[in-house]
Amino acid sequence: MKIDSVDMYYLAMPEVLDIGDGSQDMVLVRVRAGDWTGWGECEASPLPTIASLVGPMSHSACHPVIDSVLGQKLESIQDIGRISDEVRARSLDVLQTDHALSGIEIALWDLFGKSVEQPVYELLGMWGTGAPVGKTPYASALFGDTAHETFEKARSAMSQGFRAVKFGWGPYGRTTVDADADQVHAAREGLGPDGILLVDAGTVWGDDVAVAESRLPALMEADAVWLEEPFVSGALQSYANLATKSGNVKLAGGEGAHTRFTAEHMIDHGGVGFIQIDTGRIGGIGPAHEVWKYAHARGVQFVNHTFTSHLALSASLQPYAGSSSDWLCEYPVELKPLARNLTSNHIELDSDGTIRPPQAPGLGMDLDLDAVREYLVDVEITVAGKTLYRTPELTQ
Amino acid sequence: MKIDSVDMYYLAMPEVLDIGDGSQDMVLVRVRAGDWTGWGECEASPLPTIASLVGPMSHSACHPVIDSVLGQKLESIQDIGRISDEVRARSLDVLQTDHALSGIEIALWDLFGKSVEQPVYELLGMWGTGAPVGKTPYASALFGDTAHETFEKARSAMSQGFRAVKFGWGPYGRTTVDADADQVHAAREGLGPDGILLVDAGTVWGDDVAVAESRLPALMEADAVWLEEPFVSGALQSYANLATKSGNVKLAGGEGAHTRFTAEHMIDHGGVGFIQIDTGRIGGIGPAHEVWKYAHARGVQFVNHTFTSHLALSASLQPYAGSSSDWLCEYPVELKPLARNLTSNHIELDSDGTIRPPQAPGLGMDLDLDAVREYLVDVEITVAGKTLYRTPELTQ
Repeated sequence: MKIDSVDMYYLAMPEVLDIGDGSQDMVLVRVRAGDWTGWGECEASPLPTIASLVGPMSHSACHPVIDSVLGQKLESIQDIGRISDEVRARSLDVLQTDHALSGIEIALWDLFGKSVEQPVYELLGMWGTGAPVGKTPYASALFGDTAHETFEKARSAMSQGFRAVKFGWGPYGRTTVDADADQVHAAREGLGPDGILLVDAGTVWGDDVAVAESRLPALMEADAVWLEEPFVSGALQSYANLATKSGNVKLAGGEGAHTRFTAEHMIDHGGVGFIQIDTGRIGGIGPAHEVWKYAHARGVQFVNHTFTSHLALSASLQPYAGSSSDWLCEYPVELKPLARNLTSNHIELDSDGTIRPPQAPGLGMDLDLDAVREYLVDVEITVAGKTLYRTPELTQ
Repeated sequence: MKIDSVDMYYLAMPEVLDIGDGSQDMVLVRVRAGDWTGWGECEASPLPTIASLVGPMSHSACHPVIDSVLGQKLESIQDIGRISDEVRARSLDVLQTDHALSGIEIALWDLFGKSVEQPVYELLGMWGTGAPVGKTPYASALFGDTAHETFEKARSAMSQGFRAVKFGWGPYGRTTVDADADQVHAAREGLGPDGILLVDAGTVWGDDVAVAESRLPALMEADAVWLEEPFVSGALQSYANLATKSGNVKLAGGEGAHTRFTAEHMIDHGGVGFIQIDTGRIGGIGPAHEVWKYAHARGVQFVNHTFTSHLALSASLQPYAGSSSDWLCEYPVELKPLARNLTSNHIELDSDGTIRPPQAPGLGMDLDLDAVREYLVDVEITVAGKTLYRTPELTQ
């Protein structure tokens, strides 16, 4: 079959707030080939992503992304890799390309999986016909304004059945070492001795190792499993330096990686113990799976990064679905209606408290377009009198 | 003063060809503050760049770039760094941000330099009031289809007064080791024994070290100064591996770097001997200057990457203008009329065959807007019934 159409949709909640909630809007991608339709989602800012899909060519390494996808043959999973390579080469100098490609690549896997009636994780070829391994989801919460509030949040998450909670942002890292220690100890107290504690510093220390190091004793005492993003993601020397001092508290990072190389550099030169990959940013499922293989061979754990719909969640679980040594996963728990209602089925906690992607063809998610049509944003882009993009009709 | 306006203009030749010529279109940036106007250029695909300037917020790390610039105080060069930091933080997850920021940051330096009547290179603070050091420009040429054609091209460049020529792309790396050797030897023959020979492989070998290594003997025999981009820019291990084998032929790369970290990783982990930085991509003059310092301290030579107007050329020379140990520069010689005519003054070869940025306030370039107005592209972007962007009037 050949790729007949590639469409991007910008959907958004009526009001988008200035908070760290990635479920407030989305770039939904529909790809059609022959009798089949696949869906994907870019974890990206919608307008620049649409612009990179259709923006006029600047020169031979600045093609619109759609030019390297439309009309392509799609008869094997190798074709997905080949199309992605062409996009990356022909749109090399359009920085937004990797984010646009991500949703398209995911849709190609979904489409191809449906056409051959296989889940994507089986197409990835390492798990035979076995079921994917259940992952322990962690609930993401903001640190409370006070340590007591954090304690209450931790208790609440445990009472909802979570075994792992990640606290981040809020006041953490912004005041004193003692205040941060109080927060971390309160979290541990609220979780009890068996809860899995993860801490996210949200790049608050830039690249300052000494400031980050001053937080380590409390994290070690509270038995935190990881310290996420102490530094901006490019500060590999700071990561590597802190990693030599953090003992059992492993460093985690990688959500911003938009190529597999960026993620591999964090493993090779940043000393991370957990590599966090968003398939909606890194170029899709193929590159994420490559990073999983790379990490696995080096004793680094792979974890998804997901903060939007269950379509994106299924895509983000596929690259490491069958790996029992990579046992954690991010599970967005407070989705806006747009992200929640995009799919009519959802990836819910199993009776053992773990989650796994659907055992169904492609990504295994059923889209409920009627439920989200009200969030569709009308966009029109005209260049030199020619309309390059107008929001297409949202249909299956 | 406060930043009163930030405007982006998309200009393009009537016909943009599918060739590696970056001078066919441009993103021109005008910033106004108080009585002053500054100009910059993004080395970027215009439509996604404009979209990242104005695209609606997705969440707290996905603001439109303009939101972090408009209304800001601009009273010192520290303010330029502070504004850039805010842009990078508040638009962290908009991948296109670094390219949009680059042109804005360059315009801020131009504006501030004019307001205090100092060239940008003096504001960078390392060269006192001395004149910038002349750089030896290299002419960029494509390898000929035949070795004889390459020989003729080399002779022609030398007869035009160039002391250095870079050959790249064309058939190089795409056929046999012997054919590539013939090309390289022909280039050397055309240049004569004293010409400086640079070779650009244009990432043709992906990350395959063995294939690249097979080209080294000819490059060594022909005394090539550098081998540029044997691999895609993320393939640091391949770079590092080849660097141990390439002897006097240094590796060069970095033009794709959109953060200073990416460039620093090529130095730390890729073993490059030359780091090639485009100020129009890396976030502007400040980050490029940081990379120069980083490279200088490690014995790596800094070289600009420039393939468009002399406004961009001036910006790209500022970060290392006063450094005598970094003696080469890229000098675009076959500009399209748009890029050539944007400025009424030009950076020409001095009597000693070198070039240097103008000894004048800011970037020292005078824009001739009347000469390029015919190339202005009308763009209109409407989101949810609101016009977010319409090509502004092109005025000083």
